[in-house]
Amino acid sequence: MEPVDHSTVRRNNLSLVLRLLHNRALSRASLATRTGLNKATVSSLVGELIDRGLVRELGTDDQRRLGRPATLLELDGRRVAALGIELDVDSMKVLATDLGGRTLAQTSRVLDVAGRPQKRILATVISTTQRVYETLQESCTTIAGVTVSIPGLVDSAGRTVMEAPYLHWHDLDLSDLIREGLGRDVPVTVDNDSNLAALAEYRVGEFAGTQNLIYLIGGPGVGAGLIVDGRLARGAGGFAGEVGHMHMVDEGDLCGCGRRGCWETLVGLRPLLYNTVPDIAPELHARHDLSPEEKVAVVISRAEAGDALTLAGLERHARWLGIGLATLVNLFNPEVIILGGFFRGLGPWVLGPADATMRECAIARGAGGCRVVISTLGVSPSALGGVLHAAERVFADPTIVPYATA
Amino acid sequence: MEPVDHSTVRRNNLSLVLRLLHNRALSRASLATRTGLNKATVSSLVGELIDRGLVRELGTDDQRRLGRPATLLELDGRRVAALGIELDVDSMKVLATDLGGRTLAQTSRVLDVAGRPQKRILATVISTTQRVYETLQESCTTIAGVTVSIPGLVDSAGRTVMEAPYLHWHDLDLSDLIREGLGRDVPVTVDNDSNLAALAEYRVGEFAGTQNLIYLIGGPGVGAGLIVDGRLARGAGGFAGEVGHMHMVDEGDLCGCGRRGCWETLVGLRPLLYNTVPDIAPELHARHDLSPEEKVAVVISRAEAGDALTLAGLERHARWLGIGLATLVNLFNPEVIILGGFFRGLGPWVLGPADATMRECAIARGAGGCRVVISTLGVSPSALGGVLHAAERVFADPTIVPYATA
Repeated sequence: MEPVDHSTVRRNNLSLVLRLLHNRALSRASLATRTGLNKATVSSLVGELIDRGLVRELGTDDQRRLGRPATLLELDGRRVAALGIELDVDSMKVLATDLGGRTLAQTSRVLDVAGRPQKRILATVISTTQRVYETLQESCTTIAGVTVSIPGLVDSAGRTVMEAPYLHWHDLDLSDLIREGLGRDVPVTVDNDSNLAALAEYRVGEFAGTQNLIYLIGGPGVGAGLIVDGRLARGAGGFAGEVGHMHMVDEGDLCGCGRRGCWETLVGLRPLLYNTVPDIAPELHARHDLSPEEKVAVVISRAEAGDALTLAGLERHARWLGIGLATLVNLFNPEVIILGGFFRGLGPWVLGPADATMRECAIARGAGGCRVVISTLGVSPSALGGVLHAAERVFADPTIVPYATA
Repeated sequence: MEPVDHSTVRRNNLSLVLRLLHNRALSRASLATRTGLNKATVSSLVGELIDRGLVRELGTDDQRRLGRPATLLELDGRRVAALGIELDVDSMKVLATDLGGRTLAQTSRVLDVAGRPQKRILATVISTTQRVYETLQESCTTIAGVTVSIPGLVDSAGRTVMEAPYLHWHDLDLSDLIREGLGRDVPVTVDNDSNLAALAEYRVGEFAGTQNLIYLIGGPGVGAGLIVDGRLARGAGGFAGEVGHMHMVDEGDLCGCGRRGCWETLVGLRPLLYNTVPDIAPELHARHDLSPEEKVAVVISRAEAGDALTLAGLERHARWLGIGLATLVNLFNPEVIILGGFFRGLGPWVLGPADATMRECAIARGAGGCRVVISTLGVSPSALGGVLHAAERVFADPTIVPYATA
């Protein structure tokens, strides 16, 4: 087949080589073998990647037995940064790494996103991003992009927050507003928090590369990011994964969405508190200065103390969690469901019984082999997913990074 | 990039050209433009496809204004047949077409698959297939393959029926048994009925090419085939799409799967009959000589006569259908949900209210743009999907078809 455009082929080959060097060191010879390109082409591509500061020589491969030692190459992402911003009901987290995944900046602050005026929140987001951006520019020549994680429905173009009920935001062109606020020509993408967390798990988590993977996030609402056959399933308009609103019981409790009987009314933060610490639940739930994790910490401390009411509530919670997980298994047949958000702290009490209920209720034997696990990605998987999403631009087209000056 | 293997490249290019000629006639020049291959290569590829009897010259393109008229080429699939067999609780349907989609054989017979011994059923399936196979061999040189559609869980390799509760079949290596029974070296694949119907809709239905499409099949059970981002989503082990067992109500009716509250207990055939024609439902439901469609015909005739009880039952049915569809919309955000099986006859009473309920219950505004429609593919979409699935082998590798003798 003849290339329609030589520069497209060159770009694709640069991308191919850079991806192969992600997370492993390889020699020019093994790059040639893996890509099917000839050695001269590989040398030229590697040369360009070195000149753009994306790859560096690492020394020789000592394990090589025959012939002269080969020089190993590795990703040198130090000149390129990517930025992820995770906005939640009550907090703002910022993470920046270089292309190799080294953390360049990480901040987390309490921010009453849901309670304060949208304009004020946006001003804070922009000024914080601006500060981090300037710091990154001190060491990096290229900022690949900024991804903003939102707990809500985002359009598939990654520009508009359609509906974020817990933030009381809707129809907000967040991408444009932030780019304009920054006054910089940088790609700003908005995405759903569970989508980004699922992406992070799929790329760098404990189950990285698992072709069918669901990330379930527990916050004020419950949402999921769906990896189906190795790709993030967003649906026609970007609204897939709204598992919190699966209908679960008839005539159930009122949901934040205005309907009744949604899964969220059984396994969300509010029902967890009311089921496990009913005496203080109304007060605890209303506090805007505490994160979901901090509220759940109260539940955990009572469970650790052996409080019978709390333990019974957790059992009920686990059962409903398992019933919903079984529905997800019936629909998606995933290899793994990863629990994130406030579910992370509940593992000792909830994981076993939820898993058992899921196996009991799923139609495929042994839940089709599905495992339920707690996320090991830390506190801001959605910010991490945002960073990875932004960095992808450079892997797709390394030529956006300018040549390094000698 | 250098080809590792010249014959692989040639095969891929033959495949590319054959696919381009599927459903449209093109000249050699426009094939060259669309593939990026040079004209000499295209001529050679076309020559080989003609020699294999897969393509023929159609005459000249009269719409061409300048230069000499170009000869148009079209798919000539007459020498290749593919076979689909749809096994249901109470029937066996067989469909065979040539590569161009022309029907070569079509049979439908009542067969008590669920009630009679498995061995007897298999013998009938094999002898019927054998007869059709022999007929096909009279006009075709190549039988691309046989696909068997089953209402149940099939392993992802397409060999084993893991669990088909309504047939009382499980752990059955159906693919091997049929191939051995036929005594022929032909690929036999087993697949889930809703998967195949979804494939048929995606390839040749009214909404062909829709990237996110769900086919919902109503039979004794309720299942779905899921097209996610243009690909059939099978899940890790092939068990995805078991929507009939989504948990819908607590303490609900007993399901065929042994659990309570599954969607199937609200919108399957049994609840439909008990809700709409309660006086004769037990007797009607028990009859093995009637197909689901024939049983539903009784409901339809009462509805047409304006029977108040039947109409109220249909309203309830539509509401539960809509609630479940909303969950599917929340999870998959499809462009269209296509109703098949016995749902097809219920359109006038069920489609409108189910759609309204879906819009009311889905979290994305206007159900994220999802439409609910009745399948227009006729009575055996799963057999058609089976044919398409088998025919795909030839599109993927046209060299499996031998050269035609002059």
